[in-house]
Amino acid sequence: MSHSTTNTSDVLALDSLLGSEELELREKVRDFKDQRIRPNIARWYEDAVFPRELPAELGELGVLGMQLEGYGCPGRTAVEYGVAAMELEAGDSGIRTFVSVQGSLAMTAIHKWGSEEQKERWLPRMAAGELIGCFALTEPTAGSDPSSMASFARRDGTGDDAGWVLSGSKRWIGMASIADVMVVWANTDDGIRGFLVPAGTPGVAVTPIDAKLSMRASIQCDVVFDAVRLGPEALLPGAMGLRGPFSCLNEARYGIAWGAMGAARDSYEAALEYAGSRMQFGRPLAGYQLTQEKLVNMVLEIQKGTLLALHLGRLKDAGKLHPEQISAGKLNNVREAIKIAREARTILGGNGITLDYPPMRHANNLESVRTYEGTDEVHTLILGQHITGVPAFR
Amino acid sequence: MSHSTTNTSDVLALDSLLGSEELELREKVRDFKDQRIRPNIARWYEDAVFPRELPAELGELGVLGMQLEGYGCPGRTAVEYGVAAMELEAGDSGIRTFVSVQGSLAMTAIHKWGSEEQKERWLPRMAAGELIGCFALTEPTAGSDPSSMASFARRDGTGDDAGWVLSGSKRWIGMASIADVMVVWANTDDGIRGFLVPAGTPGVAVTPIDAKLSMRASIQCDVVFDAVRLGPEALLPGAMGLRGPFSCLNEARYGIAWGAMGAARDSYEAALEYAGSRMQFGRPLAGYQLTQEKLVNMVLEIQKGTLLALHLGRLKDAGKLHPEQISAGKLNNVREAIKIAREARTILGGNGITLDYPPMRHANNLESVRTYEGTDEVHTLILGQHITGVPAFR
Amino acid sequence: MSHSTTNTSDVLALDSLLGSEELELREKVRDFKDQRIRPNIARWYEDAVFPRELPAELGELGVLGMQLEGYGCPGRTAVEYGVAAMELEAGDSGIRTFVSVQGSLAMTAIHKWGSEEQKERWLPRMAAGELIGCFALTEPTAGSDPSSMASFARRDGTGDDAGWVLSGSKRWIGMASIADVMVVWANTDDGIRGFLVPAGTPGVAVTPIDAKLSMRASIQCDVVFDAVRLGPEALLPGAMGLRGPFSCLNEARYGIAWGAMGAARDSYEAALEYAGSRMQFGRPLAGYQLTQEKLVNMVLEIQKGTLLALHLGRLKDAGKLHPEQISAGKLNNVREAIKIAREARTILGGNGITLDYPPMRHANNLESVRTYEGTDEVHTLILGQHITGVPAFR
Amino acid sequence: MSHSTTNTSDVLALDSLLGSEELELREKVRDFKDQRIRPNIARWYEDAVFPRELPAELGELGVLGMQLEGYGCPGRTAVEYGVAAMELEAGDSGIRTFVSVQGSLAMTAIHKWGSEEQKERWLPRMAAGELIGCFALTEPTAGSDPSSMASFARRDGTGDDAGWVLSGSKRWIGMASIADVMVVWANTDDGIRGFLVPAGTPGVAVTPIDAKLSMRASIQCDVVFDAVRLGPEALLPGAMGLRGPFSCLNEARYGIAWGAMGAARDSYEAALEYAGSRMQFGRPLAGYQLTQEKLVNMVLEIQKGTLLALHLGRLKDAGKLHPEQISAGKLNNVREAIKIAREARTILGGNGITLDYPPMRHANNLESVRTYEGTDEVHTLILGQHITGVPAFR
Repeated sequence: MSHSTTNTSDVLALDSLLGSEELELREKVRDFKDQRIRPNIARWYEDAVFPRELPAELGELGVLGMQLEGYGCPGRTAVEYGVAAMELEAGDSGIRTFVSVQGSLAMTAIHKWGSEEQKERWLPRMAAGELIGCFALTEPTAGSDPSSMASFARRDGTGDDAGWVLSGSKRWIGMASIADVMVVWANTDDGIRGFLVPAGTPGVAVTPIDAKLSMRASIQCDVVFDAVRLGPEALLPGAMGLRGPFSCLNEARYGIAWGAMGAARDSYEAALEYAGSRMQFGRPLAGYQLTQEKLVNMVLEIQKGTLLALHLGRLKDAGKLHPEQISAGKLNNVREAIKIAREARTILGGNGITLDYPPMRHANNLESVRTYEGTDEVHTLILGQHITGVPAFR
Repeated sequence: MSHSTTNTSDVLALDSLLGSEELELREKVRDFKDQRIRPNIARWYEDAVFPRELPAELGELGVLGMQLEGYGCPGRTAVEYGVAAMELEAGDSGIRTFVSVQGSLAMTAIHKWGSEEQKERWLPRMAAGELIGCFALTEPTAGSDPSSMASFARRDGTGDDAGWVLSGSKRWIGMASIADVMVVWANTDDGIRGFLVPAGTPGVAVTPIDAKLSMRASIQCDVVFDAVRLGPEALLPGAMGLRGPFSCLNEARYGIAWGAMGAARDSYEAALEYAGSRMQFGRPLAGYQLTQEKLVNMVLEIQKGTLLALHLGRLKDAGKLHPEQISAGKLNNVREAIKIAREARTILGGNGITLDYPPMRHANNLESVRTYEGTDEVHTLILGQHITGVPAFR
Repeated sequence: MSHSTTNTSDVLALDSLLGSEELELREKVRDFKDQRIRPNIARWYEDAVFPRELPAELGELGVLGMQLEGYGCPGRTAVEYGVAAMELEAGDSGIRTFVSVQGSLAMTAIHKWGSEEQKERWLPRMAAGELIGCFALTEPTAGSDPSSMASFARRDGTGDDAGWVLSGSKRWIGMASIADVMVVWANTDDGIRGFLVPAGTPGVAVTPIDAKLSMRASIQCDVVFDAVRLGPEALLPGAMGLRGPFSCLNEARYGIAWGAMGAARDSYEAALEYAGSRMQFGRPLAGYQLTQEKLVNMVLEIQKGTLLALHLGRLKDAGKLHPEQISAGKLNNVREAIKIAREARTILGGNGITLDYPPMRHANNLESVRTYEGTDEVHTLILGQHITGVPAFR
Repeated sequence: MSHSTTNTSDVLALDSLLGSEELELREKVRDFKDQRIRPNIARWYEDAVFPRELPAELGELGVLGMQLEGYGCPGRTAVEYGVAAMELEAGDSGIRTFVSVQGSLAMTAIHKWGSEEQKERWLPRMAAGELIGCFALTEPTAGSDPSSMASFARRDGTGDDAGWVLSGSKRWIGMASIADVMVVWANTDDGIRGFLVPAGTPGVAVTPIDAKLSMRASIQCDVVFDAVRLGPEALLPGAMGLRGPFSCLNEARYGIAWGAMGAARDSYEAALEYAGSRMQFGRPLAGYQLTQEKLVNMVLEIQKGTLLALHLGRLKDAGKLHPEQISAGKLNNVREAIKIAREARTILGGNGITLDYPPMRHANNLESVRTYEGTDEVHTLILGQHITGVPAFR
């Protein structure tokens, strides 16, 4: 059943564009999703819990920091990372988000900008899922405008031993309440720098955001830094300016372009299966023109979005992927995935509003995904500047 | 603040079309919403509870069975009923749904088709909110096709004393688990008939549907009737055939056309207020073209939908409202309200996914509203048949 | 046939909102459209000619300057004007445009801002359609921004006898090449003023814009004023600043809100009739779900737009209509009319691309209507400023 | 200029997916378009003429029957054919349509189903553009349902010498009035067969369809066969049943999926250039958020559609392309191209309704393209059956 569904979903034979290792990895992650996420996600979601046993399992699956080389990281290709993200988000965006925060944000920041000592201390155990990282960039009053960052780290003393005193507020920080280490971005007298703040550092207050209508099986937090004293070793030596966090955001956005199509595909497949078995006026719903129109438009956009994600992945593996291309992928694929999940939900009738079926959960999750790492508007204006040469942000 | 917001929302000066009694009633219900629903709805929603104290308060407010005459009912006009539904749903669709189930479905069924004795027994206390009613029509396998009803009531004995034995299953029955009386529709040897089944009747099993992503501050249930014995007095004498329940559905649909615009308006006002105060790149969000475009399209559709609802109300009060006109109102206003609530949510950025702001709750609620009393597709095909003369349901 | 079509089009019984004089007028204009426009419009359109005999006939019909009082003008209500505009544009937007340019722009300018002498000289014969007027406001480089007007009239001499020397360029000036009198707006040392320039005045060069894909049965021109000498009597004494031309634009926009719905309704009715008679796979097109969905969505928006136009008309007749409300009507009704005409065209299959059926002609015409008197963007930003209090034009 | 425009259009670096021969061919066809089509198309379109000198020039360019092998045909790949179609339709859909009718329909029919003698007689001179072919399948009363074909060819005599008598009507037959040979499909006692009918055959009446609002630089005709006597050599020996013409339609549809993206790209580039130079309120249009939003959405869909077309082409060259995949390409790319051309037109303001700018011409042309070789609805239902397994045509 699952096999044949997949085949009719793959109208354009996109599978023929994947190599055997890519297909193998996909099967492996898909199995994980079918066995570990699918049977439990409704409960996790209703109860608003992130399953603490999952990080170690995902580490074993090999999807944490999977595109990084060395330090115990899997060292897979960008396409492989994308394929895995798609299957995980076919499970739940919140689970894929954990993988993105851990691998594309926290681990990538350390891998790219950290000292040798920092890398060795954190990366292997993060790749294994034994330690959890988070990435504190967004601030309460500046979701789409990181350049107005108000968090500040001032030098604490002078000379090589001089540490830092960090103050400020962050919001929407994924996994912060369970993180063993935070990558924190703050202004300094030398511009924006990154810091590693271990769990338990005095002066750090973390409050999970509750009463969420989206990604309830995930965690996002408010974090307040109240004159937090950090030693000199807390600084990420390699990152200077906004380029530091932005390069991590681009990693995450790339994964999102794939992931969103997973949520879309899962929504579509649920609707297709329901439409095939639900009878109305003596015929399966799938036999009505109004239903077919919906299903066809869904599958078309899923296929186009997947083709786009794969194209981006091939460019990335060739070292030729540009930020505006990632913006195109994130903007398009999340936007279309939301439309698809919503349309799928309508095919399910009243049953579609329960957690027994995935489309409405996916649609709600994707509202978070749409917002984080750049809203539709932000990516539209990034692309607008690229094609016209004129900025229109202000 | 609330006053001025309302003014800019009323771009087309639709308030000038309302009489002073209608405006007074609106203020009264709006106050109730602001004081009783707004401060509590996030908690009710998150905890998935229907507030048991509300029915009596709504009874006192005069909105239960409000369009009915006599038997302790308020006897208000259709427009007044609509205006109240709009304000209540600006609070929450789940609360307005209670009012619809109680007044437009259960009480209307008894008022229209019940015996004198039935009316006197139930209506006054239902109007007061002391007793709760529900309306059991929809069946698990036939959401959009009531004509295939499988529930059956056979005669139990002969002669005037003969009672009934009722068997069957119902689904999505609002308020069933707390109802004091159920209006149940079932096939009989004489076609479809309605029955009044008091709470506690042996053989009735009611199970609330949980893990809902919509209308969590409301209750919908599965109900199973296992050879339930009913006396002859259970029968609603006046209702024969599908016309019985359908006339009640039309009452409810009429109220929905108004109510949906309340959810839409509340979403719009939340987004407008947020956009006015949230700064981005040194300017309020409200000053950006992309935000204004969204807000303008929202307010246009709210105004058009409200104008439509009011027109339907005036026709109804003139005794000239036809079912296909109600279909037009329900189809259009719920569909547009969903778009508006979703668009409003995007203006709120990340904050929009929490229960601190109403748009995403409204959007999710409206998915239930879209489905019950006829999906978009059902109303499209009702109207399609009306304008073309050709049925295309099958 | 025409009668029954009208009935199924009027799903919401909007006709019941019109008085008997309004209905009578509508019948009269509809008859004119059916007898004079409908049989000839395809030829006029293909040949790109404006029928010169029409102005006198329209004058006799009583639709030129119809909302003006005195000076031989019909003195009808705003609703009556709207009802007539709707029927004329059900014929062709180009014909309705002539009526707007003549009545709402040129005649209104003279009526509102002209001297007694100017009114008596021009208005009676313009109301009769014996003389044609035009309205020269838009400039080639500033379609949506009249405040940047470059045309300039300098004083020619001093004292009461001083005339003017007018220089500048105008574009998209409807009817200019056949106009007997032009109302021309130009900057002066005292701000923007209006002038009456009779046909044949030396220094005025008029060139019709050809190779149009829209409103081919109408005329739009480039006009160049090369040091045109005007006497003191050319000045419209009452108009100072942009308020002069803008008050005329608002008259025209009001009529457009009605007119666009006429083009939409005619498109819908053509598609409905075609769908009812065209067989496919042994059933009329009208019996397919995909066709019904289109027709239903069309009729819904036509009804909503018509209800909106009528509401604006009632406000106008009560002296309470505000410019932003007109913007709402123009923006919504033209935008929706375009969607409707395009959708209607798809129901006609291949036949829809010929002039044998009106929808594609209407859709193309409406592209002009969408642009003139303020694009979608301009009206969106006018409304955006109204509801947010913040301008976002720049 | 043209170079840099192309670069910003190619946001996703799709050019990197093309080989050097493909890029070379593209340059060559693009040059032809820039020199032969672009400077003349407005005039051809306004005058409604198909330029008779073009076939020979297109033959020399090597784009007639370009994907066919032998008999003087170019023998290019499917991707090369697609790339050429895209450039030609960036010129005008009517010109690309001529190439499709000649190559994908008429020549393919002869190449695939003709006798050796037929191939040698017609193909070399058709590839050279010396002779023109057409393809008569569609009938006046059955646009989307070829199985109901009413044209009939009965045997005329018996034995090997027996000819045929052909009667029936065809509509929307491209190039018929200038064709040297018609491929005509008709029912026979043995099912549907194809016939070659040379120009001048007695009993054939061809009438060009005039007063078109689309593809005015192309020709479509009504054709009536009134007891037309054909010799035995007229029969295409290889084609039996609907599979004959359908395999040709699929060739044409494949080319359309590419071509439509050419019209879309040309529309986008015209709008981008205009927006960059047109000033409004002191800033280029391109600097406004509302304009950037339009341009970004356009370029995204162009890139997705082009990626899709290229994927189809690679599948075709690998011999793995299925009909439902072609349906996906035709449905998506034409539908999106229409949206893009329409949106581009709005950026051009009033100027957009003239033939000075291509978007509105493209938008109108694409209405023909959307209809021929299967409407949106037909392809939706083909795909709907593919994914659900249930037909919903009737």
